[in-house]
Amino acid sequence: MTNEEMIYNAPTEVKDIEVINTYDLEEKVGKLLPKGGFGYIAGGVGDEYTLKQNIDAFNLKRILPRVLADVEHPETTTEVLGHELPSPIIMAPIAAHGLAHESKEVGTAKGVSDYGTILSISSYTGSDLYETAKVVKGTSKWFQLYMSKENEVNKAVLDEAKADGATAIILTADATVMGNREKDLRNKFVFPFDMPIVSRHFRGSVEDEALNNIYLESKQKINAEDIRFIADYTKLPVLIKGVQSPEDARLALDAGAAGIWVSNHGGRQLDGAPGAFEMLEEIAEVVDKRVPIVFDSGIRRGEHVFKALASGADIVAIGRPVLYGLALGGWKGVRPVFNYFETDLKRVMQLAGTQTIEDVKRTELY
Amino acid sequence: MTNEEMIYNAPTEVKDIEVINTYDLEEKVGKLLPKGGFGYIAGGVGDEYTLKQNIDAFNLKRILPRVLADVEHPETTTEVLGHELPSPIIMAPIAAHGLAHESKEVGTAKGVSDYGTILSISSYTGSDLYETAKVVKGTSKWFQLYMSKENEVNKAVLDEAKADGATAIILTADATVMGNREKDLRNKFVFPFDMPIVSRHFRGSVEDEALNNIYLESKQKINAEDIRFIADYTKLPVLIKGVQSPEDARLALDAGAAGIWVSNHGGRQLDGAPGAFEMLEEIAEVVDKRVPIVFDSGIRRGEHVFKALASGADIVAIGRPVLYGLALGGWKGVRPVFNYFETDLKRVMQLAGTQTIEDVKRTELY
Amino acid sequence: MTNEEMIYNAPTEVKDIEVINTYDLEEKVGKLLPKGGFGYIAGGVGDEYTLKQNIDAFNLKRILPRVLADVEHPETTTEVLGHELPSPIIMAPIAAHGLAHESKEVGTAKGVSDYGTILSISSYTGSDLYETAKVVKGTSKWFQLYMSKENEVNKAVLDEAKADGATAIILTADATVMGNREKDLRNKFVFPFDMPIVSRHFRGSVEDEALNNIYLESKQKINAEDIRFIADYTKLPVLIKGVQSPEDARLALDAGAAGIWVSNHGGRQLDGAPGAFEMLEEIAEVVDKRVPIVFDSGIRRGEHVFKALASGADIVAIGRPVLYGLALGGWKGVRPVFNYFETDLKRVMQLAGTQTIEDVKRTELY
Amino acid sequence: MTNEEMIYNAPTEVKDIEVINTYDLEEKVGKLLPKGGFGYIAGGVGDEYTLKQNIDAFNLKRILPRVLADVEHPETTTEVLGHELPSPIIMAPIAAHGLAHESKEVGTAKGVSDYGTILSISSYTGSDLYETAKVVKGTSKWFQLYMSKENEVNKAVLDEAKADGATAIILTADATVMGNREKDLRNKFVFPFDMPIVSRHFRGSVEDEALNNIYLESKQKINAEDIRFIADYTKLPVLIKGVQSPEDARLALDAGAAGIWVSNHGGRQLDGAPGAFEMLEEIAEVVDKRVPIVFDSGIRRGEHVFKALASGADIVAIGRPVLYGLALGGWKGVRPVFNYFETDLKRVMQLAGTQTIEDVKRTELY
Repeated sequence: MTNEEMIYNAPTEVKDIEVINTYDLEEKVGKLLPKGGFGYIAGGVGDEYTLKQNIDAFNLKRILPRVLADVEHPETTTEVLGHELPSPIIMAPIAAHGLAHESKEVGTAKGVSDYGTILSISSYTGSDLYETAKVVKGTSKWFQLYMSKENEVNKAVLDEAKADGATAIILTADATVMGNREKDLRNKFVFPFDMPIVSRHFRGSVEDEALNNIYLESKQKINAEDIRFIADYTKLPVLIKGVQSPEDARLALDAGAAGIWVSNHGGRQLDGAPGAFEMLEEIAEVVDKRVPIVFDSGIRRGEHVFKALASGADIVAIGRPVLYGLALGGWKGVRPVFNYFETDLKRVMQLAGTQTIEDVKRTELY
Repeated sequence: MTNEEMIYNAPTEVKDIEVINTYDLEEKVGKLLPKGGFGYIAGGVGDEYTLKQNIDAFNLKRILPRVLADVEHPETTTEVLGHELPSPIIMAPIAAHGLAHESKEVGTAKGVSDYGTILSISSYTGSDLYETAKVVKGTSKWFQLYMSKENEVNKAVLDEAKADGATAIILTADATVMGNREKDLRNKFVFPFDMPIVSRHFRGSVEDEALNNIYLESKQKINAEDIRFIADYTKLPVLIKGVQSPEDARLALDAGAAGIWVSNHGGRQLDGAPGAFEMLEEIAEVVDKRVPIVFDSGIRRGEHVFKALASGADIVAIGRPVLYGLALGGWKGVRPVFNYFETDLKRVMQLAGTQTIEDVKRTELY
Repeated sequence: MTNEEMIYNAPTEVKDIEVINTYDLEEKVGKLLPKGGFGYIAGGVGDEYTLKQNIDAFNLKRILPRVLADVEHPETTTEVLGHELPSPIIMAPIAAHGLAHESKEVGTAKGVSDYGTILSISSYTGSDLYETAKVVKGTSKWFQLYMSKENEVNKAVLDEAKADGATAIILTADATVMGNREKDLRNKFVFPFDMPIVSRHFRGSVEDEALNNIYLESKQKINAEDIRFIADYTKLPVLIKGVQSPEDARLALDAGAAGIWVSNHGGRQLDGAPGAFEMLEEIAEVVDKRVPIVFDSGIRRGEHVFKALASGADIVAIGRPVLYGLALGGWKGVRPVFNYFETDLKRVMQLAGTQTIEDVKRTELY
Repeated sequence: MTNEEMIYNAPTEVKDIEVINTYDLEEKVGKLLPKGGFGYIAGGVGDEYTLKQNIDAFNLKRILPRVLADVEHPETTTEVLGHELPSPIIMAPIAAHGLAHESKEVGTAKGVSDYGTILSISSYTGSDLYETAKVVKGTSKWFQLYMSKENEVNKAVLDEAKADGATAIILTADATVMGNREKDLRNKFVFPFDMPIVSRHFRGSVEDEALNNIYLESKQKINAEDIRFIADYTKLPVLIKGVQSPEDARLALDAGAAGIWVSNHGGRQLDGAPGAFEMLEEIAEVVDKRVPIVFDSGIRRGEHVFKALASGADIVAIGRPVLYGLALGGWKGVRPVFNYFETDLKRVMQLAGTQTIEDVKRTELY
């Protein structure tokens, strides 16, 4: 632990919040958080072309209002990998929630559990998995894995995740090297607290938790063999996260992936790449409904959820908006963010003439 | 009636106004009106992408100047559903004119009648239908219906509209749930006065006229049956407003609609939808001149009127600009707005080499 | 003559000027001229979409640099309707040069004559044709006609133009009604001086030289018959100015036009029209080299001249930039503007590997 | 030598620098350098459309992240014309490094040599070739030639270059006339120091080293014969620099060019031309791997290097960013710029699933 932790003032307030839109939340949080932490959460890579394109790309396809479709009270309930969900909106794995609020992942977990959707937990969690697992009631925990170069480390981490109740493993495959995050370089950003899984399991016991050092520990060569290994070892479904090319979707399916997670890491890895949404439809054609597709990167409104589902996603994951809710209200600030998305999605579903999530998936965008 | 009405200072001045363009009017009115009222009138939903696209989309098609077309003194007179009109420009149904001027719908009606075109009256009128009807001389009144879930309520409302002289019913089908109007949320906007039809007929006698409460009273499931019911019950022509999808146009025609009203509610319902003008041509192909097409959403200049007519509309409706005229000059401020559009349209017709409205409709845009 | 003339302070300085680019000139002149005069010269119509598009449209086609083309000292000399010219750049007809400089059209004429290209003179000249003609030495004068409704007036005007040495007539056909020039409306702009041809010949002896009154005098119905009449009456070549539609080009050619002048009046007539350059190629296909094509509207750089020639124009005309030169330096400020364009064009010709104007015309843009 | 040299304060500091991105360097240097020198280095021609498009055009093709590609530790080593290189990034020929730093080309050469890549030296070098050659150890020097109209001058210059160890000649063919550099005109920019090759060899011994005078000395008519002459006379490979048209690539290959250098002179010659990157793929098809392709103009990030290689380039050259490094840290500021590009390229290669430069070249962009 470094001196920096002493001076990182994460918010501590716990309260209900109002969500008019998620951009407002980002703006408020930008004023609330220490610069380094906010830069890490909100920033992208390089010119932030891809970060911006993640949101702009949604306007490449538009939703046609439907007015004589005879629907009312649209239902957002759905199912993925055997889990019943109140809406097709789950929590994305995101590192170091402690940057947003002193309650860290435990705060997020309590809020997500309160809403009742799937909680993805990052290898770079700041809270202990066990502590986090304790506060989650009745909802599923998916564990996100950054692979170590050492298989024994991977086994130990997976053992712990499984022991603490993970029902699926998310293999993040698009972060084999740290993206070019200029905000972090400018801020000379170092994680201001321990990350239990990193500390306990990753070789070399990282003294200085600078981003580069952490990434250096992780495995760069990820391939089909890794998917098979995780599936065999854990007997859990494995979702491959970071898929943007149809070829990778094919490889993942052939290797037995239980889900394809279309994402470009929120514009945090490779700049000059397309908006994540731009690749969704083509990948969905490859997947051809054989396994579920999760989509993240750029979801900020109910319209975006609708467009992602209508383009092939079964579920979307949100990350930054939830951390903004956490920053503003601790665990009580999390559920309002999910409620906002659900309410907004329902409104869009009504106006687009769709009664169910299956109707949304059958909708043709314009 | 709430306390808020006491403090909502609607303009009261009655005077002739100069109209250089309608954007100037909006800017002036933005300084004149209470924030809540102006936000309600001018605002759109969500990111206001669709609100902006409604106007920007007109640049997707351009008008070719014609110079040897041998025309002069272009004529804008036209006809719709048996009504002779000085121009193809009518008044759109828009709620709560009292937000713009103390004379409410009565002021608008007097001005529209002075110009001599069709007046559409909203279910959410702030003036009494009977009072409004009294000031309209020689021009037609179309009544816009937000359907209630209760058919008896619908019958009572339609009875009143018919008794007060409505010659057509506009069924608004694209507002079965309130759009995501963030300005209203920020302003915590509540209608600052009674709406007679809402108060008298809608069940539950809404105490607090917050927008959501009003919309909750309205019917969500709108279908072909509703069109047939209104037509049978009133024996009046029924226009279906809010059509943006060709499929809805087909359904409406099959159900006996007497007119298709292409609109996206002025960008006030579903954001992430195309600009209303973008859908006009495709819908016109479906309608195939069997019934008239009315177009609104984004008309701010004579060029826009021309482009809408050349893309399949028979008539356009204007809303916000008229309310701006009303705000600035009461009933005397209304006619100058219509005159502006007519004059501007004539200029465009001359420069585009078109003598009559029928010529405009035959024009190919570039 | 009105009181306004007393207070319109047109610049009076006569001096050589430096031209780095023509945008700088506009900026300087904007600070120098009375607001009304500058607004009239620089402004467009409506949203100024077409005004802006006139320049932006040039980027729709790009020039490929050529490097092994074996050219040097490119030659810009060319010929049109029998006139030898130092470059394919002539003076456009533009009204009321007195707004820019006290020397009025006489100043422009002296400068244009100094450069040695064709001078177009507007019907709305502020200087007397005879006075203007006197200062022009060795170069051609083309007279631009706004037709009157009265043929006797047209004859008298044409007689005077011919007597003063006009060698061609430019029939402006795209200004049969005044465009929607909001700047002029805001400035309540009235011409601050007499226009001799208007005063002497146009019926009704306009007291108040407001723009609308002037345009009201002009003929709206222009057709093939008018072209034949002017050609027969004057025995001079007649160029039809304002052509943007292929159909008008066809009509003009059939009626015996000696030249097609592709222009949208500098974005001053019909807003929502394409950039003038966008229509050039299609019209050139119709004209098929039977008569020369003159192009104006948006020419601000040598690159624009090159692109216009490579897209079908034989000659380009410049207007506003010349008036800016006149404003800044009187007659001595005019030639530097033409020199700027010629020098810039030569540079572009060299870099694009073209030795002659004919080579430029054969160039394919990218 | 003029008085101006006395007052041109080139930076003198020698120190290591941090490179977060090259835009930051430009910004810092803009504050550090005299206006005239910075304008010359950073500026483009005309509207700077092409300068901007050089960078923007990279977004026309995007890189697809690859995640199951099984790569790690990507290697950037490559080879061109027999030279082994640490990365496909070489130093572009650029004039007058003395504008950036008092150490002039000698400083750059020392830094480039330290990194270990090819150094291109301009005819307009401010340092003596011999002095520059002395500091270069173990890396190759390519000499860039602006041809004189006099063949004897060309021979003398080539003799000197060869004597000082040049291993290839870069014939710059796109600067047969000076581009329209408005910044230099505004700044009345004159080179503030002697350029040894210009002074010693170019006829007329230019007293006043204004840009135009220098360019006037150079040959305008460049053709296939010139390529043959240089190749025959020097027996060195000749690369043709400034190729943007497929036709020029064909002509150069037929004349025996040993390399095609795709470039638009960094947007410094012909404005209104495409971004250089836009032409790369089409030219690569013509070249068809018969000779290497070097690409410059707009390379500012590793993503750009990747996209250029994936579009047909074998090597990219960087110019301005290196001069910014030189300005900020003298010779010690040069290598960090190359390291930045190499590191960034490696990151992109990893994230795009490419192990070697050959893999990059086989990548399809999206």
